[in-house]
Amino acid sequence: MPPLILALDFGGTKHTAAITSLADNPGKEVNRQWHAHQRAFSPLNANANSDLKIMTSLAKKLLAGEKPSAIGVSFGGPVDFTNGTVLLSHHVPGWENMPLQQLLEEEFTTPVRVDNDANVAALGEHRLGAGQGYDSLMYITVSTGVGGGWIFNGKPWRGASGMAGEIGHTVIDPNGPVWFGKPGCVERFASGSFIAQWAREELQRKAEQGKILRNLADGNLETISTQLVSQAASQGDELARQVLEKAAWALGVGIGNAANLINPQLFILGGGVTKSGEIFWQKLRRVARETAMPEVDFEIIPAALGDDAPLWGAVALAEDLIRTTNERFG
Amino acid sequence: MPPLILALDFGGTKHTAAITSLADNPGKEVNRQWHAHQRAFSPLNANANSDLKIMTSLAKKLLAGEKPSAIGVSFGGPVDFTNGTVLLSHHVPGWENMPLQQLLEEEFTTPVRVDNDANVAALGEHRLGAGQGYDSLMYITVSTGVGGGWIFNGKPWRGASGMAGEIGHTVIDPNGPVWFGKPGCVERFASGSFIAQWAREELQRKAEQGKILRNLADGNLETISTQLVSQAASQGDELARQVLEKAAWALGVGIGNAANLINPQLFILGGGVTKSGEIFWQKLRRVARETAMPEVDFEIIPAALGDDAPLWGAVALAEDLIRTTNERFG
Repeated sequence: MPPLILALDFGGTKHTAAITSLADNPGKEVNRQWHAHQRAFSPLNANANSDLKIMTSLAKKLLAGEKPSAIGVSFGGPVDFTNGTVLLSHHVPGWENMPLQQLLEEEFTTPVRVDNDANVAALGEHRLGAGQGYDSLMYITVSTGVGGGWIFNGKPWRGASGMAGEIGHTVIDPNGPVWFGKPGCVERFASGSFIAQWAREELQRKAEQGKILRNLADGNLETISTQLVSQAASQGDELARQVLEKAAWALGVGIGNAANLINPQLFILGGGVTKSGEIFWQKLRRVARETAMPEVDFEIIPAALGDDAPLWGAVALAEDLIRTTNERFG
Repeated sequence: MPPLILALDFGGTKHTAAITSLADNPGKEVNRQWHAHQRAFSPLNANANSDLKIMTSLAKKLLAGEKPSAIGVSFGGPVDFTNGTVLLSHHVPGWENMPLQQLLEEEFTTPVRVDNDANVAALGEHRLGAGQGYDSLMYITVSTGVGGGWIFNGKPWRGASGMAGEIGHTVIDPNGPVWFGKPGCVERFASGSFIAQWAREELQRKAEQGKILRNLADGNLETISTQLVSQAASQGDELARQVLEKAAWALGVGIGNAANLINPQLFILGGGVTKSGEIFWQKLRRVARETAMPEVDFEIIPAALGDDAPLWGAVALAEDLIRTTNERFG
């Protein structure tokens, strides 16, 4: 029987564990299947210890007494990859300097590797998703925030202190609105939170406009989400279209700039905001193309693994651990 | 006797050839010396063939009948590194699709490697200059234009089609002046050409200001250069200081964005504009620091090899060729 792999995704307040086997054919890893897959949510007032207990219990239930050959972990926050220590969580208290790799290695007596969700999702899409066969790519997730991860020469590039990929914090408009102390960064325009917020503000400013969006929201602006904005835009709402195009413009400039700086083959886009339809994608692709130099070639495509990208990336981390160990001792 | 290395730098209209020996101690390559070093300039109406003739004649004179073990070449324009073909020159006609590596290999019957000047200078500073001991860095040259090259994991990163490093063409102000069809890119603010041009325009717009700069120019605005602007700024000229700080601001935003995206250890700055003194460097460092996230660490330091950075990088290209060949056949 091929070695068992446990993949864990600590996703803010949503935790997932899943089990699969080491691939026999690493070159042809399409259509991989989970043996088991389960999700649990943090309770109110969760902290690091309660999250750890939930995840350990999920994992043990799925494993049903079997021992995994390696564990890969995606964590929704900055991680020191060299020793698998979580630096902090922006969602849940108590994660500061938590030695997650060490704790899991003791609990499951098997090797563990931990990395942050953007890096892990990039690896997942590269090995098992939309980035298969590409040597250099950037994965960008656009949901509540905007983050990213790089693959260079077929391997994750984490940067000197594990911070590479922060495209959401690149500045594209010095006169734009301030966010985290900086004016006009990509995240301030393109993240789901700000698409919704800006749509609300525009509706309040322009009483005569945005009729379709107002109707979709049943007049209650608090219910407005990116999804509602893109739905209204696709039905012809001009105000919603402008809000969505502003977000696509910002992301397009960020991607064009990244293309000029790094010249990767591919950009893969995941996260809720990238499900905003053709208006969003057309504007995004056009602006990225105009921002990059004519000689700089690239594609921009949607992610293939959806919410499971970090989990499949965690599988890839675990597979690398097993193969490295086999090469060294086998 | 250690193997002989020929280094060539095709620099627009300024061509340099130099000779050195393969280093015995690749780990400690400080204080390397040229055996011989000579420069020549293109005539008016130069073309690719006349430049090639000038360079070949320079090289043969320096070699004096000896045969180099390898040749490294820096070219001031885009190059297909995989086969050493020059794509074009922005300065001299006739370079389109010129198989420079092949021509030189036939002429000197020895292995040749060719890359563009920004990549080669980055390699030079990494191996023999300010970037020694660093694993990841960006070299940026700020002179007539603004270009750059990357080192990741101790090796040049050229990008999928050899275009990586184009920080000068990243957009930082959508309402900024248009340049090469794009608004507000770094080069449009920070390059030497535009510092001088903008200073002239400001002096024309503001008749009462810039007295020190006007005096330094003897009233002839055509003589204004970046050097004169920085001289005036350091003597207290407010108009000159603002022009210089605008350039430093643009470069600082570009560097801060690159730090957020890639998180390298180091930025090395070369080229005439970076000799503009403390006003320029202080503003540049402050803006880069403010643009990058607090967790993203980096240094910004001046280049060490000056105009010889591409030549020493060409030496590194040649040394890699010799060592690879030795490993394979020796």
